[in-house]
Amino acid sequence: MTSISILGSTGSIGLSTLSVIDSFADRFVIGGLAAGRDVEGLAGQVARYRPRLVSVADERDIPLLKERLRAKGLDRLPEIAYGTEGLVAVACLEEVDTVVSATVGAVGFLPTYEALAMGRRVCLANKETLVMAGELMTRAASESGAELLPVDSEHNALHQCMRGEHVNEVKRLILTASGGPFRLAPLERMREATVEQALAHPTWQMGSKITIDSATLMNKGLEVIEAGWLFGFSADRISVAVHPQSIVHSMIEMVDGSIIAQLGVTDMRLMIQYALTYPDRLPTELPALGLDKLAHLEFMEPDLERFPCLRLAYEAMREGGTMPAALSAANEIAVSSFLKGQTKFMDISAVIEETMEAHETQPCSSIEAVLEADRWARSYAERLTETADSKARSERQ
Amino acid sequence: MTSISILGSTGSIGLSTLSVIDSFADRFVIGGLAAGRDVEGLAGQVARYRPRLVSVADERDIPLLKERLRAKGLDRLPEIAYGTEGLVAVACLEEVDTVVSATVGAVGFLPTYEALAMGRRVCLANKETLVMAGELMTRAASESGAELLPVDSEHNALHQCMRGEHVNEVKRLILTASGGPFRLAPLERMREATVEQALAHPTWQMGSKITIDSATLMNKGLEVIEAGWLFGFSADRISVAVHPQSIVHSMIEMVDGSIIAQLGVTDMRLMIQYALTYPDRLPTELPALGLDKLAHLEFMEPDLERFPCLRLAYEAMREGGTMPAALSAANEIAVSSFLKGQTKFMDISAVIEETMEAHETQPCSSIEAVLEADRWARSYAERLTETADSKARSERQ
Repeated sequence: MTSISILGSTGSIGLSTLSVIDSFADRFVIGGLAAGRDVEGLAGQVARYRPRLVSVADERDIPLLKERLRAKGLDRLPEIAYGTEGLVAVACLEEVDTVVSATVGAVGFLPTYEALAMGRRVCLANKETLVMAGELMTRAASESGAELLPVDSEHNALHQCMRGEHVNEVKRLILTASGGPFRLAPLERMREATVEQALAHPTWQMGSKITIDSATLMNKGLEVIEAGWLFGFSADRISVAVHPQSIVHSMIEMVDGSIIAQLGVTDMRLMIQYALTYPDRLPTELPALGLDKLAHLEFMEPDLERFPCLRLAYEAMREGGTMPAALSAANEIAVSSFLKGQTKFMDISAVIEETMEAHETQPCSSIEAVLEADRWARSYAERLTETADSKARSERQ
Repeated sequence: MTSISILGSTGSIGLSTLSVIDSFADRFVIGGLAAGRDVEGLAGQVARYRPRLVSVADERDIPLLKERLRAKGLDRLPEIAYGTEGLVAVACLEEVDTVVSATVGAVGFLPTYEALAMGRRVCLANKETLVMAGELMTRAASESGAELLPVDSEHNALHQCMRGEHVNEVKRLILTASGGPFRLAPLERMREATVEQALAHPTWQMGSKITIDSATLMNKGLEVIEAGWLFGFSADRISVAVHPQSIVHSMIEMVDGSIIAQLGVTDMRLMIQYALTYPDRLPTELPALGLDKLAHLEFMEPDLERFPCLRLAYEAMREGGTMPAALSAANEIAVSSFLKGQTKFMDISAVIEETMEAHETQPCSSIEAVLEADRWARSYAERLTETADSKARSERQ
């Protein structure tokens, strides 16, 4: 049996992971579960999967969790931890083989690092981890022999395409992007976009932060940086193709001109299962991709003028050091501010760009250096979102 | 240096192979060349590549070849052989590492077998070889440790998709078919199709026999049988999808629902290079596939009523033994008869079906058994094409 801890168990990736585990009850058992604020959801998972350790984001939610678990008639409560330490404890449970890292934002950084340093297989759905500290993460994995398997559909597709290929014979990675809800929107409409419009993703059902990142294409920008670390590619060997149908999940172009593509239905369970069972592939009951779905696929260049976040991500990747961490932190703050209605949609890239301009890049030499860049960028971006000139800023773009 | 012999050097695959070899003069040298009737073409190749041994189809062409070579000022003529023995001698040249088997029809059968038995890498563009005697060929290869690498675009694509995958985790192979010139033609028009219409292939420039096979979809039927032998798949795990754009060269569907596809420009040099240099991939100067080419891809089920040859190939594959050899032999005769204007387009499948009905399947236990089935089916099909009832036969379909 493979023992699994899930960081972010009540989010969409967490729920899909549990659904996969349900299908293979003879292979997988839950070690620990870490959730954010969804105490109700976590209580239900604890009652069903009986993990030894659970964690919540906020200490103040622990009494409510205990109450809910008792109400479910649990005779023995699990250990309950909280915060970053709780996440690390869940990731580092002694009996755990595989950690599914699916928290949103920078909070997944430390527990993922610790799991890799301990040689655990990490199924990574948290984009910020590699963006913030790809150098540290991949070094920790290579020193401990840990496997780092991508769960999000693009990198998972790239991983599938790369099976049996040599990295130096791959000319470039081609990440596909749905284009999000504003793929065809004129810049004027994007400037006035509501939270509701930005959350209306055409293809995938995901959490709100990642959905906004899809609308700005920052999601793709973070993926470009992530792909660079996962596969050892520089920025100029990674392209983005807007592909609204999301049928081709990504492609690789070989030096001989061949393109290898991975296609599938848009269901995260496929990718999670792949990462959990690699190198095995197991049958699934999900419907197969009908060839009729391949009938009218489109691919086009991304528009960097309307989607400056993608340009900024490439710039941060080329700059290196702590700049990607600053980009990611500023993005989290800017998206959060937009979701709260404090700033406008195009302010997201503006806040990131101003933060990057002010950031003094340091080498990515230690966890402390990364966390310091993260703190600094959050604080700087926070101040930017609080200033009253968001309208003026947005219109400069 | 890798020494290469080409069987069928003046055909389209042969010429493409020489073009690839020209690009990698530091890796490849020509050992032997075997051509059919194109003495002029062969003489030019000999002058350029200076093979030690050449072969022509017909002994009577040798004086002309010598004359042409002397006219080109060659001080030393190569050894010159002819016929099947000549092909075998070129395939089995002592110093040769790799044999490109690109003759059309059953003539490639023996030299390919001998090359495999000697442990040579065989880059196989000759479909009939595996169709006639896949069992004998794959056994010879496995006993000698020979590598059998497919050159035609579909199997080459499948080979690329299968890198790094386990055969038992592949649910099915999906061979794509352009659909040929009669993809959308009503049956009535196909019945009256001229040779010229049937030779007007929409995508690939190939020899006339294989072009007619594309028009009847027998080409795809032979490929289904061939794929079965190359990858160890039964008929029910191999599908055909009509895909007029010929951009996706083939796909594999994994047990977990993922589809891995190989895409590329329609240039045989890519596949030949892949087979010659495998497991390496080398850069090519061919233009890359633009993503705009992927914009409007179509995939549809083949119509077995208008294309009975595909159905017959599946039937022969399921029957096994010498039946695929009989199918292939009857097809060669029927196509040749159509090309000569003796019979009609829909007679091709009718002649094959009648031959198959009359064939008493034997186990594919020896070369002799296969050659006997081949001889029998040729002779039987020949008689059918000579009878005057072709019109009546065609209209029965």
